[in-house]
Amino acid sequence: MSETTDLQSEIQELLDNSHMDQAFELLNSRHPAEVGAVIDELEPEHAFPLFDLLDLKNQSRVLAYLSPSHQLSMVRRLDRHALARLFTEMNADDRADLYQELPEDMQETLMPALAKAEREDLLRLTSYPEGTVGAIMTSEYATVASHLTARQAIEKLRTQALDKETIYIAYVLDSDRNLVGTVSLSGLVVANGDDRVEDLMQRDPVTVNADEPQSVAAQKVADYDLLAVPILDDHNAMVGIVTHDDAMDVQEEEATEDFHKSANVGVMSGGVSQVTLRILYQKRVYWLVLLVFANVFSGAGIAMYEDVIVAHVGLVFFLPLLIASAGNTGAQSATLMVRAIATGDVVMKDWARMLAREISVGAALGITMAIAVAGIGLWRGGPEMAFVVASTMVIVVLAGSLIGMSLPFLLNRLNMDPATASAPIVTFIADVAGILIYFAIASAVLTLPTAAAG
Amino acid sequence: MSETTDLQSEIQELLDNSHMDQAFELLNSRHPAEVGAVIDELEPEHAFPLFDLLDLKNQSRVLAYLSPSHQLSMVRRLDRHALARLFTEMNADDRADLYQELPEDMQETLMPALAKAEREDLLRLTSYPEGTVGAIMTSEYATVASHLTARQAIEKLRTQALDKETIYIAYVLDSDRNLVGTVSLSGLVVANGDDRVEDLMQRDPVTVNADEPQSVAAQKVADYDLLAVPILDDHNAMVGIVTHDDAMDVQEEEATEDFHKSANVGVMSGGVSQVTLRILYQKRVYWLVLLVFANVFSGAGIAMYEDVIVAHVGLVFFLPLLIASAGNTGAQSATLMVRAIATGDVVMKDWARMLAREISVGAALGITMAIAVAGIGLWRGGPEMAFVVASTMVIVVLAGSLIGMSLPFLLNRLNMDPATASAPIVTFIADVAGILIYFAIASAVLTLPTAAAG
Repeated sequence: MSETTDLQSEIQELLDNSHMDQAFELLNSRHPAEVGAVIDELEPEHAFPLFDLLDLKNQSRVLAYLSPSHQLSMVRRLDRHALARLFTEMNADDRADLYQELPEDMQETLMPALAKAEREDLLRLTSYPEGTVGAIMTSEYATVASHLTARQAIEKLRTQALDKETIYIAYVLDSDRNLVGTVSLSGLVVANGDDRVEDLMQRDPVTVNADEPQSVAAQKVADYDLLAVPILDDHNAMVGIVTHDDAMDVQEEEATEDFHKSANVGVMSGGVSQVTLRILYQKRVYWLVLLVFANVFSGAGIAMYEDVIVAHVGLVFFLPLLIASAGNTGAQSATLMVRAIATGDVVMKDWARMLAREISVGAALGITMAIAVAGIGLWRGGPEMAFVVASTMVIVVLAGSLIGMSLPFLLNRLNMDPATASAPIVTFIADVAGILIYFAIASAVLTLPTAAAG
Repeated sequence: MSETTDLQSEIQELLDNSHMDQAFELLNSRHPAEVGAVIDELEPEHAFPLFDLLDLKNQSRVLAYLSPSHQLSMVRRLDRHALARLFTEMNADDRADLYQELPEDMQETLMPALAKAEREDLLRLTSYPEGTVGAIMTSEYATVASHLTARQAIEKLRTQALDKETIYIAYVLDSDRNLVGTVSLSGLVVANGDDRVEDLMQRDPVTVNADEPQSVAAQKVADYDLLAVPILDDHNAMVGIVTHDDAMDVQEEEATEDFHKSANVGVMSGGVSQVTLRILYQKRVYWLVLLVFANVFSGAGIAMYEDVIVAHVGLVFFLPLLIASAGNTGAQSATLMVRAIATGDVVMKDWARMLAREISVGAALGITMAIAVAGIGLWRGGPEMAFVVASTMVIVVLAGSLIGMSLPFLLNRLNMDPATASAPIVTFIADVAGILIYFAIASAVLTLPTAAAG
């Protein structure tokens, strides 16, 4: 981030010395992502002069790199005509995203100021629910007719270049806007100028439906190494594309959501450093309180064996160790499965094979950890204690790993998000199971001075 | 994955009926990623006939989508000349990866069969350690001279197209191979044919050093929405590019590694469904056993207060609940920070601000959870018990969240991987702290029949 700081101080110096021309030159020559990073770091009132120094095209591009709150601050000051000019200049997908951030009154003033084509495009793109492919696609893709020659197609793409997000892939549509093939600019450049698009194009391209989750489009782009994936509506008409850079953003966003879910933090729009404290509290408190009540079961499990504990208080020494071991092993298994399902490494039909593998690995881990704890048991409480803790360890570790491995599959089967099988939830289940197994074995093996516990 | 199954059964039917021409046609018309997925699902001996049906170009492309073990099975059967032909056809980066998978004797037979240029390229690319940018870059990038006109540059790119990974971005180098600018094919196509490259090119492009971690290249591609990022050596000479599709693979791989680290699973090359059971065991057992011994401290914490426990055995009821709460809150904080640091949302200098935020949120969470547990305490053990568990809850939750938040920063500061601050480790620290705090408060507040515990 030192680059950001450099650019920021350079700009500040030019502004302080009123070298406006040089400041203009510098800001407009840098990558919009860099300028966006500088502006995002500043309080809005200090960012305004910088933003206003950008030309219209760069303003429209820098906006896309700002956080929602900064986007809003920048455009809120504009009158409807300035706003409409900026909107017209923006990429279709960025424009749709910004439109949805605007307060309703601004949306209403803006709409009539836009040209009809842009208005319709905006309404179409904003009609898809958040999280779907439709909500992230752009309508600015290049098309060529199948009867054109390569030379004519290049000329056609040349005229489209400024309005389209990419001209490296052109789409060939029939009269119903059904996608019949794709042709790459590199294919056109390499081809003989008289070759026809219909002979050059790739038929049956990979496509995604606009109603599918956004992760599906990102995964296709990743799996097939695409520059962009074409998006179809329910009637198989082409309605947009998702480009590689947006796919990469989606992939990062989805990974972040899964990370947060792994620790039972709810889905937040915006990074942890930007969201309000209220949102952060809300996204975290729900499962924490739920787990407080869930853990009453762990307490109840212990309470059932209070007699055993009073008779052999040394048992409590091993309690955190044994339940942590079950929980840690279970968390490993759950994390491995959740991620493998998310990346497509493991699918539902692998269930039986994965279970067999987990039993082998879980047993091996359990035995290793039992050997480790047996030594401690011998030292703290003699051979009987060593036997109790070691046999408990094997069983709880195996149980923990099977629970951790199965839960994501089960959730997936029930059409729920496998990522809900988070470490804390698996740990909780492993805790309860671990406590019951431990004291059951202990009360069976150890002699009790009073009557056996119930 | 149903697409994979369809293609597989279609092919199988054609093979069974000896329609070899149609099978050839079908396999060679599908995307190499699809064919690769089919082959990867089959046992090697069943995959050979399919692989052999592919033409040389498709073989070279499909290979890149196979798992390392399948790659090796496919090429192991080839004699040195067939192997050299295949290697020559492959992309430079895929070729270098495969070369490193080969057993030493195959490497030695292959080398002399390759042309000098390929041999040198292979040695250069394989000289960078795994995990660095150099190890994932490709040397097949397109270059144009700055004095060319746009028309001449397009013609130049046309002749390079077949050998280069992309011609959409061309690099302009000076006589020392220093990068002076980049020009896009779309820029060249849109420009006037007589415009010169030096006037069209973007100067000062974003670059990455070949020795940096691979995630740096992936992050630059993501941040600047690049098709490819140019890679420089220590003398600032250009040595390769990392393309958007490889950057996306790196991003996914890095996220998977961080997921696994979050549950203390070591870095594995290959998915959880593919690695051997032995590797899986090795990657999991290390931290599990370490945490068994670490948790002796939790046990020791409890053992210090055995008198208190015997006098008030009801305290044990709340033990799992309180330490789980501290651990869960800490795991949330750690996960949020680890991911925020990985994505660049939070940097070192945000430390103080993030600490202040964490204190507010941690206190709010602690108070909420204290209210929840106070009710349970009142029900199980009266007002004194309610006071003990509620005040413990506030302190341990706040402590857990501060530990979870600070540890990733601390590790980063010490130039260690922040992702090492995994849920199990944070939970362990929170456990020990929680036990000590709980019994300290309990022994201070509750009356003990015997002398106070030590």
